[in-house]
Amino acid sequence: MRSRAESAPSFLYVPELGEPGARLELTDSESHYLARVVRARPGDRATGTDGRGTVAALRVIAIGSRVQVEIEHAERHEPKRRAWVWSGAPEGSRADWLVEKLAELGVERWLPLQCERGSWSKGAARQERWDRLALAAMRQSRGSTLMTIEPPLPLTEAIVQAPAEAARWLASPKAPRRAPDGSPGLMIGAIGPAEGFTPSEGGALEAAGFQGISLAERRLRSETASLAWALWWANG
Amino acid sequence: MRSRAESAPSFLYVPELGEPGARLELTDSESHYLARVVRARPGDRATGTDGRGTVAALRVIAIGSRVQVEIEHAERHEPKRRAWVWSGAPEGSRADWLVEKLAELGVERWLPLQCERGSWSKGAARQERWDRLALAAMRQSRGSTLMTIEPPLPLTEAIVQAPAEAARWLASPKAPRRAPDGSPGLMIGAIGPAEGFTPSEGGALEAAGFQGISLAERRLRSETASLAWALWWANG
Repeated sequence: MRSRAESAPSFLYVPELGEPGARLELTDSESHYLARVVRARPGDRATGTDGRGTVAALRVIAIGSRVQVEIEHAERHEPKRRAWVWSGAPEGSRADWLVEKLAELGVERWLPLQCERGSWSKGAARQERWDRLALAAMRQSRGSTLMTIEPPLPLTEAIVQAPAEAARWLASPKAPRRAPDGSPGLMIGAIGPAEGFTPSEGGALEAAGFQGISLAERRLRSETASLAWALWWANG
Repeated sequence: MRSRAESAPSFLYVPELGEPGARLELTDSESHYLARVVRARPGDRATGTDGRGTVAALRVIAIGSRVQVEIEHAERHEPKRRAWVWSGAPEGSRADWLVEKLAELGVERWLPLQCERGSWSKGAARQERWDRLALAAMRQSRGSTLMTIEPPLPLTEAIVQAPAEAARWLASPKAPRRAPDGSPGLMIGAIGPAEGFTPSEGGALEAAGFQGISLAERRLRSETASLAWALWWANG
């Protein structure tokens, strides 16, 4: 174990960061973490993010069931490159780690796609678990973007709602490989379910401007393809 | 569900494939799969691999508790590009999916690395579970290489045993990004444990010819970095 003094400052999720000088109470989970896990003391420093691009230096003022902190300074990181991932349903229970990995890589928004050959079941408990996983991954990677997890949406509706300016990619084993593309702005990666998109779904995506991209020589599982696309984006 | 006729032929693991014309009995698990899951009948075709690069067309001769097949023809695939991955211990129980994903991507050999800041516990049950996961991943991706899973080994021993001709890569957030490298032959990717390699371990790897490579802009978890390196290799 490394001692407290050697570690990087604690990285906290503070949804409502204020201006420098402001004091605020942390949420229950962040208070617990700081008071009980890290055993912070008044005067200790921590880092906080609102999950929407702002990162702040914090100073601990008072320890209690709710920890009080003061904002020392804050900086807004406007991400130059943003990614949304649309994922068809994988086989079995592979979605949890997919959520964790996409959040870790800094994907801004994840949309479970309802497809003809694979559908996501709905469940409030699962949504809460996913939100927790995304939050833990942001903290662990010390990122400043909390991945938004959408409720499952049919492909046609997802296409209608896609921002006009987004670059659009469709994971397809038959398409060409592509070198990493470092273009700024928003990119959307669409990945079919375990059984693949149907020809009509593929046609709808092509008509909407989605370009094919192959992500490996081998046939990838659906969830691996989602992650491979996010890594391709992250390497741009 | 797709009907049996529309599906690709069943993909089986047959460790001891013979010459064309030879007849042999499948293992219990492959027999069960063919007889009970796919409900194959005499005369049906299947594909088999020995997990060491040979793929054969099989014809079902007789269904029973052990299914009998005849080898129609066999083809040896000599992989031009081969990958070994050395992984330090990740946090928590993230190794299972790592095994599945590395096997899916066609990694030839996986070595859990014992490091100063992270060690793998040993366990026969876990080794069996990993072997099963690697086998399932090979079948699912219809690959012809069954990933070999080594017992955990200290870094220094791993370095001594590395084949001289292997190209050597070290995942490091501070190193430069690299375009995919399609060189033929064997590549080894070394990834530290959750807490990272120590400076002396990093020095030993550098002295042994390991070149740094950064795999994403963000700090990656150890198991994500292993997978990211394998995807970088798979894209070469």
